[in-house]
Amino acid sequence: MLLKSNINDLKNIIKSENVLFSKEERYCYSQDSTHVNQKITIPDVVVFVETVEDVQKILKYANMHKIPVIARGAGTNMVGACVCQDGGIVLNFSKMNKILEFSPEDMVMKVQPGVVLNDIKLLAEREGLFYPPDPSNFKVSTIGGSIAQSSGGAKSFKYGTTKDYILSLKVVLADGTLMRLGAGTIKDAVGYHLNQLIIGSEGTLAIVVEAELKLIPLPESSGIITAYFDTIQDATSAVNQIIKQRIFPATIDFMDNNSIKTVEEFYPSGLNTTKACLLMIEIDGYESSLTIQKEKIFEILNNYGNDYDYTADKIQMEKVWTARRSSFASTAKLGRDVISDDIIVPRSKLPEALSGIQSICNKYSLKACIVGHIGDGNIHPQIALNMDNDEEFKNYQGAKSEIYLLTVSLGGTISAEHGVGIEKIPYLNKVLDTNSIDYMKKIKMLFDPNNILNPGKIFKL
Amino acid sequence: MLLKSNINDLKNIIKSENVLFSKEERYCYSQDSTHVNQKITIPDVVVFVETVEDVQKILKYANMHKIPVIARGAGTNMVGACVCQDGGIVLNFSKMNKILEFSPEDMVMKVQPGVVLNDIKLLAEREGLFYPPDPSNFKVSTIGGSIAQSSGGAKSFKYGTTKDYILSLKVVLADGTLMRLGAGTIKDAVGYHLNQLIIGSEGTLAIVVEAELKLIPLPESSGIITAYFDTIQDATSAVNQIIKQRIFPATIDFMDNNSIKTVEEFYPSGLNTTKACLLMIEIDGYESSLTIQKEKIFEILNNYGNDYDYTADKIQMEKVWTARRSSFASTAKLGRDVISDDIIVPRSKLPEALSGIQSICNKYSLKACIVGHIGDGNIHPQIALNMDNDEEFKNYQGAKSEIYLLTVSLGGTISAEHGVGIEKIPYLNKVLDTNSIDYMKKIKMLFDPNNILNPGKIFKL
Repeated sequence: MLLKSNINDLKNIIKSENVLFSKEERYCYSQDSTHVNQKITIPDVVVFVETVEDVQKILKYANMHKIPVIARGAGTNMVGACVCQDGGIVLNFSKMNKILEFSPEDMVMKVQPGVVLNDIKLLAEREGLFYPPDPSNFKVSTIGGSIAQSSGGAKSFKYGTTKDYILSLKVVLADGTLMRLGAGTIKDAVGYHLNQLIIGSEGTLAIVVEAELKLIPLPESSGIITAYFDTIQDATSAVNQIIKQRIFPATIDFMDNNSIKTVEEFYPSGLNTTKACLLMIEIDGYESSLTIQKEKIFEILNNYGNDYDYTADKIQMEKVWTARRSSFASTAKLGRDVISDDIIVPRSKLPEALSGIQSICNKYSLKACIVGHIGDGNIHPQIALNMDNDEEFKNYQGAKSEIYLLTVSLGGTISAEHGVGIEKIPYLNKVLDTNSIDYMKKIKMLFDPNNILNPGKIFKL
Repeated sequence: MLLKSNINDLKNIIKSENVLFSKEERYCYSQDSTHVNQKITIPDVVVFVETVEDVQKILKYANMHKIPVIARGAGTNMVGACVCQDGGIVLNFSKMNKILEFSPEDMVMKVQPGVVLNDIKLLAEREGLFYPPDPSNFKVSTIGGSIAQSSGGAKSFKYGTTKDYILSLKVVLADGTLMRLGAGTIKDAVGYHLNQLIIGSEGTLAIVVEAELKLIPLPESSGIITAYFDTIQDATSAVNQIIKQRIFPATIDFMDNNSIKTVEEFYPSGLNTTKACLLMIEIDGYESSLTIQKEKIFEILNNYGNDYDYTADKIQMEKVWTARRSSFASTAKLGRDVISDDIIVPRSKLPEALSGIQSICNKYSLKACIVGHIGDGNIHPQIALNMDNDEEFKNYQGAKSEIYLLTVSLGGTISAEHGVGIEKIPYLNKVLDTNSIDYMKKIKMLFDPNNILNPGKIFKL
């Protein structure tokens, strides 16, 4: 618990109106999008930073007084990565939301961490450029959070994840030191890739205060195929056939029957609720290539029940994606709480993984809607329950554990794009080599010897 | 200098025929493709490893006796990254050259470090898949070297570099511990990206003994446009116009007039020697998209002198690339030694960088052939000289230093895809934040406290 004197110090260090300390204000920043099933606390103070120097001064102070510092963007995290477990300072980046530079010719954009992803995407598109990472929450989530959690999204299948689009970072270390990592050029082979070490480190090694992003030319055109299947096996088999034909869709997303039905119940979108599952296959590229991609995919889909549709109309496409993205909100209506998990398996193991997860959830009587970016092998089981109901909670924990064990047995891992946070720590040793966990801890202690940066996330020291 | 007893120990640790210690044999492994202008020594012993256990045993022994260990693939490195500066053990991976697993469905290949890149490419292509990184030496260089140096190539413009295609690594630490990094899945957000820290670390942190590679669908078709320009400014301006049209070529490579003339002199390829420079623009994608790409590019080229050609014939395309790749060998005929440098600038700064490098080389009376992957902003000045001629060498050093200063002043960096090795150490502080160099050193000491792994590379401790 911070003392009143600490709060006063902070108000002297930065603009006092940026230091929030009433209980109500602190409460607002005590949660993220995770339904955490562990003890969390509200922060002792919430600080809105406006400049790099603000961040440096706060960290220097916090380090000297060994106060935990938890960086926060839009708070959309799904693994408890930006909640407090023992008070501390929440460093709110929503005022550091400027796009600092944009050079269309160099295809590079320099941004502050609080910039919302959609703003980056829209500005890039205006110049015929493209920032591909697209976590489902990209209309609200920030680039700082994307970097911290190594975010992916539907288009990662073709375009990779956040780590593939960061050219350089400016970070502030625990002691307040500012450090630049990477040259900002498209390629860079000078020394260790420390920026890649920061990406996905969930604010535990350093705080990102600026990022240079790589952009690529925006594909000329795109369209989306929605295809229904009678069995999951058919759907995954069709996906494999498509890729075997050397088609490289931008996204291959998936909704199971429960997801389809639940979305239709709460956000009617005209989906066919009688089918086992739905694939959303977005194709992109030169206008002239869409026809051939579409035709080749249709030819394959004709072997799997012939129930598909195609649109290249932007409004219709947005409707398809809105239906897919509504699956979280609609699952949330099935129970007081909803947990969106995130596992990934090699694509060849998808049938076993998907039907296995369904069976596990049935066994534990859990309402689960399964979606995913299955081009990558990435599955998001969304489970609705009342976490205060002991039996439901026990069932959920049993199911979660079995889902992870199944994932590992299929050669997969327990987080594809959400991170570890506090939620997945107990399972870390199921997927990581013990030696590599040790080295992660050593690196953590090297960067943050007082363990003030987002302590207790990814692993316990 | 290793003692006879050390050599005998090594012969007991692994198969004795894999331990080479005659002077002639050791001499063969004392050089790489760099014309190093610093003191180097021949190794004390060359060890051919056959298994992961061999590597573990050798490292454990070397660590105990504080003997330097320098891993080596095909020895094509350009910055002295695999030469010895104070003897030690050269760990030769040419017998660990197996492709261990290949799952076309998962688009993943598991390989040993000694596998030649071309073998990976060819096997992938047989299944309609694609491993994009293509350093100019890919027909002889190994994946272990690619990982160590974070290699790029002509196709990095569209497809990224080695770091974008590594899903997991098995590495042996200095003390012989085996460690797996990364899950091998297409996405992975579990803990720090330690595999990304190893990539580009030039064998100084750990020795890679296995890698899982990400493959992507092979583009259906490709073709190449060769276009001549009267000025460098015209060429770079055309490149910008092309990208502005949302064309995303696989490669945009460049040869200046000296390169063209030198290639024509020694490896006649039918190039037009009267022009200031040549662009080689490879386009790829669905067959049906090539026409539109080609036409849009032609339309732009018509504004710049109209001297271009196109072929989609595989043999003709290979001839174009052979001409481009011959530029190093033909420059080598201009002097006793040849140095291929590697700098990168933001694309908007290319005209200044290219003409600046030409002026610097003229000023110092150096024969320079300039090529590059200019879509990325990556320039390879290839300089021919006799390094034993004091005046020429002094001129070269002056030019090198000025080229790097120019690069830095234009917002670029001194290595895009070759690494730092021993050649670029003196310039490290020109491009890296001092704090980041300190953290690199701290990480090095964490992984390799006895400094046995490729000591003296990237930085001096």
